[in-house]
Parts: sequence; C-alpha cells; structure tokens
Amino acid sequence: MFEHDDPVLELSDEQSWKLLSKTQHGRIVLTAAGETDIFPINYLAHDNHLLMRSAPGTKLAEITINENVVFETDGISSDEAWSVVVKGTARVLQSGEEIAAAEQLGLKTWVPTLKDFYIEVKPTFISGRHFILGEQPERF
Amino acid sequence: MFEHDDPVLELSDEQSWKLLSKTQHGRIVLTAAGETDIFPINYLAHDNHLLMRSAPGTKLAEITINENVVFETDGISSDEAWSVVVKGTARVLQSGEEIAAAEQLGLKTWVPTLKDFYIEVKPTFISGRHFILGEQPERF
Repeated sequence: MFEHDDPVLELSDEQSWKLLSKTQHGRIVLTAAGETDIFPINYLAHDNHLLMRSAPGTKLAEITINENVVFETDGISSDEAWSVVVKGTARVLQSGEEIAAAEQLGLKTWVPTLKDFYIEVKPTFISGRHFILGEQPERF
Repeated sequence: MFEHDDPVLELSDEQSWKLLSKTQHGRIVLTAAGETDIFPINYLAHDNHLLMRSAPGTKLAEITINENVVFETDGISSDEAWSVVVKGTARVLQSGEEIAAAEQLGLKTWVPTLKDFYIEVKPTFISGRHFILGEQPERF
C-alpha cells in the first residue's frame, strides 16, 4: 500500500484522505460531562468532511453538549495495517438543502431503522499511520 | 453469530467476553488534559482483563495522567456486525512476576520494535451489540 523501510510511516494528509475515502466503517468518540463514549459508525468522506447518519439518541445528545469529536478508521491484513485519526467539530445538518445534498451521496447505515439526522464532521487535525507488521525483536 | 429479530441485539457480558476473546485488534481511547486520543492496538483478553503492549510514548504518558480508558473492538461482514466497548482503568504492569506472566501469554504487537511496557485494563463497564445489517426503510 505504501513503501517504507521503518515499521511505521506517518502519512501525509493527502494519503490519509485517500484511505478515509475508500473506507466506510469507523468509530466516533464523543465526550460529554466527563464521560467518553465510542460508537462504531458507517461514514462517507466527501469534500474534505466526514458525513455520518444517526438516529436520535446518545450520539446526538453528546454532540449537542460537546461538538469536539475524534474519529478513527483502520485496516489490517496479514502483513500491513493502517489507521487514520481525525479530530474535528461535529454538527447536525439542519437545512433542507443540506440534508437533500447529503441524501444524494447514498450513505449507508448499519441497521434498517430510520435514521433521521446527518452529522457532518469538519476536521481540524488529521493523522495517518501505516504499519508494516512483524515480530518484535527479542528482549535482551 | 447471534439470532435475533430486531436489527440490534444488546449482548450479555458473557457474549461480549466471547467476542473480546476471539479478537486481537481494537482501539484504546485515552483522555488527558482535556484532549482525547485514540490508538489502534493489538490486545489479548485474559482472566477478565485486557492486556496490551506499548512502547514509551503518548499512550503511556496519558495513562499516567488519567487511568480511565475506553476500549472498542468490532467486526463487520456482509450481513452482520458487532461491537464491544469496555470502560475501565489502565495500569502499567510493574513487578517482574506480572511481566513474566504477561509474556507467557504471547501477545503480538503490530510493529517489530521493542515494546517495553504491558498495560492491563480492568473493566468497570462492558457493552456489546450485534447488528443485522440492512437497508433503512424509505423516508415518508
């Protein structure tokens, strides 16, 4: 996927976006009132933002209290792995125009329930790493 | 994996541990000084605890500041998905006896660098969910 000699390669923003764009499944981390929660979620990378859908519930309530979110997606195979972390601010799409545009993108959700809200994450920080997997050296 | 009619099944602790035990790859969420970080990590479920390895760095520094951590692992296939979230306290194994016992378990790490520390997470809360994937209903 990426060629490098060291076991860990720090990815550029462009490389990180490439991985974000070809993945659909990640996790969003929310913090409210000192409590941290993490939710697996389908997402879509579009126009330098991440788009997710949510039913009313804990996720939406927490974003209303604290818009700062952390998102992570990763992949692992037999000999390589990667992870991209996005920190940013989340907001619930409000205008009919924005929601209509989001619906056009065809974002799929995990379960067949009606999810009435779109959440857009605007990144303020992106960090990507690519790992060549292997055994650690012997301890001396 | 689990039979249920509703799209989402809340798993028992026993079911959640079963999933934790047969998975090796998850993410640990750490919070220190108001900053939340997430790291992909290999782990091992053993004796009602989670065991991870870490090189000196951000993860270890953050655990020293705030021992409260959140851990998540999940799996997804074409028609089902699951996620287990563990909240708990993390500590770095200190005694030679504990470290020797941990080494016996054969926990693998992602990259071939020497990781000198074992982190043990003692769960205080476990939540597991199993999803039957499908399309959401049409909006009316």
